[in-house]
Amino acid sequence: MQYQAPERDAQFLLFDVFRAQDVWAQIPALNDFSEDLINAVLSEGARLTAEVVAPTNQIGDQQGCEWRDGAVTTPQEFQAAFAELAAGGWLGLAGNPEFGGQGMPKMLASLIEEMLWAANTSLYLYGTLTVGASLCLDAHGTPEQKATYLPKLYSGEWTGAMALTESHAGSDLGIMRTRAEPQADGSYSITGTKIFITGGEHDLAENIVHLTLAKLPDAPAGTKGISLFIVPKYLVNEDGSLGERNGWASGSLEHKMGIRGSATSVINYDGATGFLLGEENQGLAAMFTMMNYERLSVGIQGLGSGEMAYQQAAAYAKDRLQGRASTGPQNPDGPADSLLVHPDVRRMLLAQRALNEAGRAFAVYVGMQLDLAKYAQDAEAQTRSELLTPVAKAFLTDNGFQGAVLAQQVFGGHGYIQEWGVEQVVRDARIGQIYEGTNGIQAMDLISRKVLRDGGVNLRRFVDLMAQTEVAREHQADLNDALDRLVRVTAYIVDHAAGDPHLSGSVATEYLDLFGLTIYAWLWGRMVSVAPADDFGEAKRATARFFFARLLPRTDGLERSICSSGDAVMALRGESF
Amino acid sequence: MQYQAPERDAQFLLFDVFRAQDVWAQIPALNDFSEDLINAVLSEGARLTAEVVAPTNQIGDQQGCEWRDGAVTTPQEFQAAFAELAAGGWLGLAGNPEFGGQGMPKMLASLIEEMLWAANTSLYLYGTLTVGASLCLDAHGTPEQKATYLPKLYSGEWTGAMALTESHAGSDLGIMRTRAEPQADGSYSITGTKIFITGGEHDLAENIVHLTLAKLPDAPAGTKGISLFIVPKYLVNEDGSLGERNGWASGSLEHKMGIRGSATSVINYDGATGFLLGEENQGLAAMFTMMNYERLSVGIQGLGSGEMAYQQAAAYAKDRLQGRASTGPQNPDGPADSLLVHPDVRRMLLAQRALNEAGRAFAVYVGMQLDLAKYAQDAEAQTRSELLTPVAKAFLTDNGFQGAVLAQQVFGGHGYIQEWGVEQVVRDARIGQIYEGTNGIQAMDLISRKVLRDGGVNLRRFVDLMAQTEVAREHQADLNDALDRLVRVTAYIVDHAAGDPHLSGSVATEYLDLFGLTIYAWLWGRMVSVAPADDFGEAKRATARFFFARLLPRTDGLERSICSSGDAVMALRGESF
Repeated sequence: MQYQAPERDAQFLLFDVFRAQDVWAQIPALNDFSEDLINAVLSEGARLTAEVVAPTNQIGDQQGCEWRDGAVTTPQEFQAAFAELAAGGWLGLAGNPEFGGQGMPKMLASLIEEMLWAANTSLYLYGTLTVGASLCLDAHGTPEQKATYLPKLYSGEWTGAMALTESHAGSDLGIMRTRAEPQADGSYSITGTKIFITGGEHDLAENIVHLTLAKLPDAPAGTKGISLFIVPKYLVNEDGSLGERNGWASGSLEHKMGIRGSATSVINYDGATGFLLGEENQGLAAMFTMMNYERLSVGIQGLGSGEMAYQQAAAYAKDRLQGRASTGPQNPDGPADSLLVHPDVRRMLLAQRALNEAGRAFAVYVGMQLDLAKYAQDAEAQTRSELLTPVAKAFLTDNGFQGAVLAQQVFGGHGYIQEWGVEQVVRDARIGQIYEGTNGIQAMDLISRKVLRDGGVNLRRFVDLMAQTEVAREHQADLNDALDRLVRVTAYIVDHAAGDPHLSGSVATEYLDLFGLTIYAWLWGRMVSVAPADDFGEAKRATARFFFARLLPRTDGLERSICSSGDAVMALRGESF
Repeated sequence: MQYQAPERDAQFLLFDVFRAQDVWAQIPALNDFSEDLINAVLSEGARLTAEVVAPTNQIGDQQGCEWRDGAVTTPQEFQAAFAELAAGGWLGLAGNPEFGGQGMPKMLASLIEEMLWAANTSLYLYGTLTVGASLCLDAHGTPEQKATYLPKLYSGEWTGAMALTESHAGSDLGIMRTRAEPQADGSYSITGTKIFITGGEHDLAENIVHLTLAKLPDAPAGTKGISLFIVPKYLVNEDGSLGERNGWASGSLEHKMGIRGSATSVINYDGATGFLLGEENQGLAAMFTMMNYERLSVGIQGLGSGEMAYQQAAAYAKDRLQGRASTGPQNPDGPADSLLVHPDVRRMLLAQRALNEAGRAFAVYVGMQLDLAKYAQDAEAQTRSELLTPVAKAFLTDNGFQGAVLAQQVFGGHGYIQEWGVEQVVRDARIGQIYEGTNGIQAMDLISRKVLRDGGVNLRRFVDLMAQTEVAREHQADLNDALDRLVRVTAYIVDHAAGDPHLSGSVATEYLDLFGLTIYAWLWGRMVSVAPADDFGEAKRATARFFFARLLPRTDGLERSICSSGDAVMALRGESF
């Protein structure tokens, strides 16, 4: 099945819905980017993903990665595809121009990332880790560190990896054991074992730059005693050439449910040479500066999976002849009508569309907040991006997985066999809900840090912004109801959380879903308000109607579930589980 | 991870909730079964599944099945486990005693089936197809056919398979192409290709009895021209010994997302000898007589997956130390508290428990209706079983899959790697929503055939029955609200379906969910009303509270979604998908 990037929708979002041209015009760093240039980038991204990246997706899943004596071989087809992706500058798209990046806005990068995730999630994982490492180095590196690493990462000659997790410490980084001993030359000797290291070892690049969390000998206990180190596979000589092999190795690969073309290593650091990145004991904070970007990117992974799955299911439903329409044959000369005549099949496809298209708008919107914060020092946009990031990560990946499951269901039995490819999308999409902070952790981040900490003030400010935006008249009343509900539920939680320390955790996931659906209602209202009078616009209006009639009503149940929780979650004794 | 059958819960349901002893006492065919005997069967089932079946589950997934020149090899460990399962008489548990079955009630068999599905879904598929074929032969076979096949199937020396699907005709059996030519000796020559044939070929039994749908030369078009044939792998001699190899063979195996220890064949019939089962052109009707049993069984597969996944997740959550309770350390001497201190983890575990335990009650209840219909000629019970079967199949498998996904989420990253086994449960559970009639087809069966056809009369009768049952006082008001809602939504659909031919299909899935949740509310009310004053009863009451506070509220959104559907599902033009 050929993936085709949603180029038209991307243009609609950038230029009609969010009017990126007006935003960029007022920002010196971005006002060089013309609409023509942006359209050319989108077109080239669409070509690359359709012609080069997507064809490697299914075969990558079948071949998987191989480990032998510490060396990792990726699927055969990945080499050429990654080389083309790297050579095209796609990993430096939003990178710092001072060091060879292209300095393009995240609004655009979000759309390109979606294409790459959709076309081959496993392959792009090597890319996104590289982009993430670059962001961290750009924010916290010394000028020498930036000059040494950034150009090579932007060009994809080297790739990045993040080494956080240890086997006993998943989401709880405070109890990690990896040690960093200061050396006489100013470097550190890193010893310990990390697990689940995506792209920690592979054969797609000549060097692999680990950003590794470890503890100094005298470090405070818990998360305040964690430092961040650059630990490259090959040490880099003064002249930039590669020197000796560093003291770490892949101990084994994980056998995973999906993303099987992505090599996930156990990494053993055995006195490896590391270089402090940022300040001592400030490692977590340094990691967090890029967290909003990374979490948005993983959210976009979910979106890409959802889009890829939808395209497969829609093509299958149009082509597959099964049964007859309840109103009489629509394909009287054929043996049966297409699956599209069945309302239940349409329900599944429309749910995917409604969530994908709103999800794409959401990703671009969050990207815009990151751009405004970074390039226009817009503090409100920074706060908004922090509020919205956990929602983007969790809601987009939840919807991506559920959309892929719906797409698989459209295929019936053919969705369960490997041949058609859609079961791979389900397996690949599942990881998005788990890594980069599980979606439960995102939900708690949202409710605790982003909503309760200021008593709901920022949330309320964002609700006011949504209420003041012009949306399509036919959806205004439903949107108002949804906004009122969000305010009401937030107030309920703010009021009750003080007296019940378990409340916020108990209802966090439902609250995130409620918030996400409300944002999607707002975005559908905005999209419809500027949808053109052609087939594209007609499809937007029809999909929006489905969203408001069939998906937004879930918020009714979410409100009642949240507000009747009481101590229902904590009542059962631990031994009884 | 060791599976342990929920024996205590099984006893509670049989003897406290549904008072099986009183039901059976009034039915001659069942009044021999004492409580002691039934408890012994449950215990032996628990032992068999924990010690013999479950240990083959994970290795079966890893090894998969192999095809060579038409021969199929199952995972090595399956041979001994299946032999013990067969020798123990478990496949004839509810079989006809006249031909070697044990004649036990479906109420009990449902609970045993759950254990077998949970312990190894792939392995039990060979069993359930055998049970299904036996049911069909018992209902429609001639005395000679029954005597020839039933004892061998009940003993598991032979197994059964159902050959319905063809590659161009999945759910649309009317357009099948397999032909049956009458022969001079009264047999038929079967020619055609079937796909997705579970257990169609394997090495676990000396003979495999296919029940194959095919068309006679002069058959009417569509589903009224389909006949059913017995097409054994080896023809059976007069004396019951095996004769010559029949003219069919496995053309290949499917590569599937899960249930990889279950061999799914393409079967090529090349003039194979078949024997008519039942009447000419009545094949679909014959298949449908066992459909309620089979669909309930697949529903129970979902339940088994849900239970297996829950047990894994609960054990992991109790054992895994991560983070601290928001109210202060609960395990102050350890490096962290267990996952159980986190409300969001409890939310996931409680959702699984609440759905599994109600699902188990539901399966036993539907089994009771089948028993009453079969052994007490209770026409109302027959009608109820027909109303409830599509709900049991779809709702139990949907919840089983979603429960497995929640269990996987509890594991975090460890849930995504094969080592822990929970990702296998997710992959295995997924098929239950697809085969034996997709869940969308179940939803349309419910709304069209079981509810709309009689204008909602039978549905209303079942609602009245639920309303008249004694339930725990603390849940009566919520149950009443749920029943009122179900009546209101049903009336809405009945009223509007006449004027909108797409309405029932558009809202079928949500209606099934609404009905399922309402039934679960009733069952939770019943369970709490008889829950004992010990830890077991305490856990029931706590889980029920979670169900009413956190899961039943979903019906709010389902009602609004159904009642505001309008033409939202059909508005988008086919070309725009």
